[in-house]
Amino acid sequence: MSSGRTAYRARWVIPVTSQPIENGVVCVAQDGLIEAVGSASEIDTSGARVVDLRESAIMPGLVNVHAHPELTVLRGTIEDLPFTDWISRLTEQKYEVLTPDVLRASTWLGVAEAIAAGVTCLAAPDDAGHLALAMKETGLRGRVYREVFGPAPDQASAALAELTGEVDAMRADVDGSRVEIGISPHAPFTVSADLFSDLSAYAMAEALPVCIHVAESAAEELYIRDGAGPFAERLRSRGIDVVAQGVSPVAWLAKTGILGARALLVHCVRVDRDDIARVADSGASVAHCPVSNARFAHGVAPLPAFIEAGIPVGLGSDSVASNNRVDILEEARFASLMQRALHHDPTLLSPSELLQLATLEGARALGLSEWVGSLEPGKQADLTAIRLDVTHSTPPGEPVTALFHSAQSSDVILTVVAGRELYREGEFRTLDWSALVKELGPA
Amino acid sequence: MSSGRTAYRARWVIPVTSQPIENGVVCVAQDGLIEAVGSASEIDTSGARVVDLRESAIMPGLVNVHAHPELTVLRGTIEDLPFTDWISRLTEQKYEVLTPDVLRASTWLGVAEAIAAGVTCLAAPDDAGHLALAMKETGLRGRVYREVFGPAPDQASAALAELTGEVDAMRADVDGSRVEIGISPHAPFTVSADLFSDLSAYAMAEALPVCIHVAESAAEELYIRDGAGPFAERLRSRGIDVVAQGVSPVAWLAKTGILGARALLVHCVRVDRDDIARVADSGASVAHCPVSNARFAHGVAPLPAFIEAGIPVGLGSDSVASNNRVDILEEARFASLMQRALHHDPTLLSPSELLQLATLEGARALGLSEWVGSLEPGKQADLTAIRLDVTHSTPPGEPVTALFHSAQSSDVILTVVAGRELYREGEFRTLDWSALVKELGPA
Repeated sequence: MSSGRTAYRARWVIPVTSQPIENGVVCVAQDGLIEAVGSASEIDTSGARVVDLRESAIMPGLVNVHAHPELTVLRGTIEDLPFTDWISRLTEQKYEVLTPDVLRASTWLGVAEAIAAGVTCLAAPDDAGHLALAMKETGLRGRVYREVFGPAPDQASAALAELTGEVDAMRADVDGSRVEIGISPHAPFTVSADLFSDLSAYAMAEALPVCIHVAESAAEELYIRDGAGPFAERLRSRGIDVVAQGVSPVAWLAKTGILGARALLVHCVRVDRDDIARVADSGASVAHCPVSNARFAHGVAPLPAFIEAGIPVGLGSDSVASNNRVDILEEARFASLMQRALHHDPTLLSPSELLQLATLEGARALGLSEWVGSLEPGKQADLTAIRLDVTHSTPPGEPVTALFHSAQSSDVILTVVAGRELYREGEFRTLDWSALVKELGPA
Repeated sequence: MSSGRTAYRARWVIPVTSQPIENGVVCVAQDGLIEAVGSASEIDTSGARVVDLRESAIMPGLVNVHAHPELTVLRGTIEDLPFTDWISRLTEQKYEVLTPDVLRASTWLGVAEAIAAGVTCLAAPDDAGHLALAMKETGLRGRVYREVFGPAPDQASAALAELTGEVDAMRADVDGSRVEIGISPHAPFTVSADLFSDLSAYAMAEALPVCIHVAESAAEELYIRDGAGPFAERLRSRGIDVVAQGVSPVAWLAKTGILGARALLVHCVRVDRDDIARVADSGASVAHCPVSNARFAHGVAPLPAFIEAGIPVGLGSDSVASNNRVDILEEARFASLMQRALHHDPTLLSPSELLQLATLEGARALGLSEWVGSLEPGKQADLTAIRLDVTHSTPPGEPVTALFHSAQSSDVILTVVAGRELYREGEFRTLDWSALVKELGPA
């Protein structure tokens, strides 16, 4: 008689909240919760379906706290441009070139990429409207923030009215799934203070999580502080009044009240000590996207200062139109390398700290650490397994070091969310990748 | 009748010295030289063995200008330490822990890793004495620099005498192969000025290329400039006189004459404008190892300044005890990200510049660009093919961008040196990887 249990065994099990277990087992109950985690010699697997993952490491599924799956089709197509020009080109593509069908396939391709890369929890803004269903249907966990734009103060009430209808529909769509709906007022240079204030009240009344791109670029800071630069010029050319605020983007946002609305602040590259204190005091979280920030030449966010201030921080790939990879292991590696090079401290961001960032801290940044982010009995069975017997990880040495300094997303051989296998040994279980690629036409 | 020719065809051919060719072919003659490069519709492949590499990009084999294959077994074993402590631990491992048999297997494993990563030309110092034969027997191209140590001035003549015998034997060993022998006086803190001068004369008389680790760490600079710090203390404790030189490590080296001896200067992180001018004037090259430099928290070498000064620069993985990967594509990506983040310029180090660094510029840094580094008729058929139909590169967009911002070393499906296939579709053709892993014992 089958118990409905599955026992995943591998050379290593990395629970995150306790030390790595050699020759370990993770037992998953039929209800999708973790039943037991331990040494193969100690865990009773009788009656369970046993899946031997050989020379791999089973770890909590990776948490990607910021991406734009709908932009997957734009990978490698808008390159080596200043940020403001990149945004113009991207906007043109999104609204004038890509058809709704292409945006749908692009969104699904992005969800597929995340699943194949061992991501079990994804948080992403969405504009085209396909992400929530793609995540629900494939079984991925996470959060979809409905994107909102509205730089003209007189647009605020209309934008809010439109948004509330959309959010209600999205919430109905994802009912019964592991996807939560939130809202994403895009950025300080695309959303007016009035709209931020209205959205803050709406989000708090409806318990909606919020995602905002903030303190990313010099152009954004110039726009907020001085009412100047390319963003100001563009808005003025559209007849929108722009005023110098004389404060940092984070300080400006704080005045609208939105930081307290379960806000996830994406980027936070251009922040000073006061900004960091504001974020910490507000209870907001940070999405750290080091590769995207570097590619756009924005700079390096003060990750160690965020951690020291107790701000929950997760890692985000950002869109593949700016990264161009979804590889949370490489993202973590790069975060560490960048901080070490800048701060001349070789003990900064050790592999075990990177492990935290990529899993439990990412979950904490989304307010989900009670349910996911570590392998512990009673938590959701969200896990991935990563091969360590490949050429580039041989010999692996200590497994957490191997995961974050040798392995890469394509070494993933298993992605499980709430006990359901979404990906195993190169095969997607809940989507048809070849059909998606065909849908996008000849590359 | 077979012509003995092989025609490699793929979705893309990237010659480096000319624009990417869609649906291209590289024809390799029986003598291991490239016969033709062009569009599949134009190249005559009659009589040739045709190898279809499908949705991949064929490019010149990657050039790794600095590695330490003998240290492969130490991957992930010495982590998160200050550089000086890392060197002590490494020295202990090399001379007191690892047996000659393990060092031999470790060297071969490093050569295997390079081949699987699409490296066709490898330049590396070697201390244990196994690298030259491993490269000769596997068919890899490159250069082995016999490592020399000798911080005590009175050791200089004995060290030189020992070295000349070793170099003669190594040269005899690699006769008839694609491996050249050079010498590597290790670093300013392990080799005396007298020995550097003697080696300079010896290298020039024998036309031996030279490799030196220089301007890598703050500790090294402190040692040379001020005769102080941990390296000075260690030498004084061994009874060796240490004197403040009052100049930079590169300026100090220049006085010994060794920069003019076809020198490859590894790291060059701590260099000023005068140092860069010295290197450029001497005709020396630079091995840029951005990941290693960042992991040790040494900082960021001024790569754009090297390029602007006309110094030949190649990319080096350094040892996997400090990287911990051999992935020249990721190394290039990281080099670009780091410079952009630091210099706030999003046009720095575009994919096509990274392509140059990883191939033709690397070859130029080794003085080999007449023979390898680009796909042109008459050049050696050193090439690799990299899959672009994997999840993380779909859709690929422009192929050079895909290679340097989406692909990774494990996407390599073909490695060819001088027309000989060393690796194809996961299989080594000139070595037994499983046997090597077994030799190293249970991981």
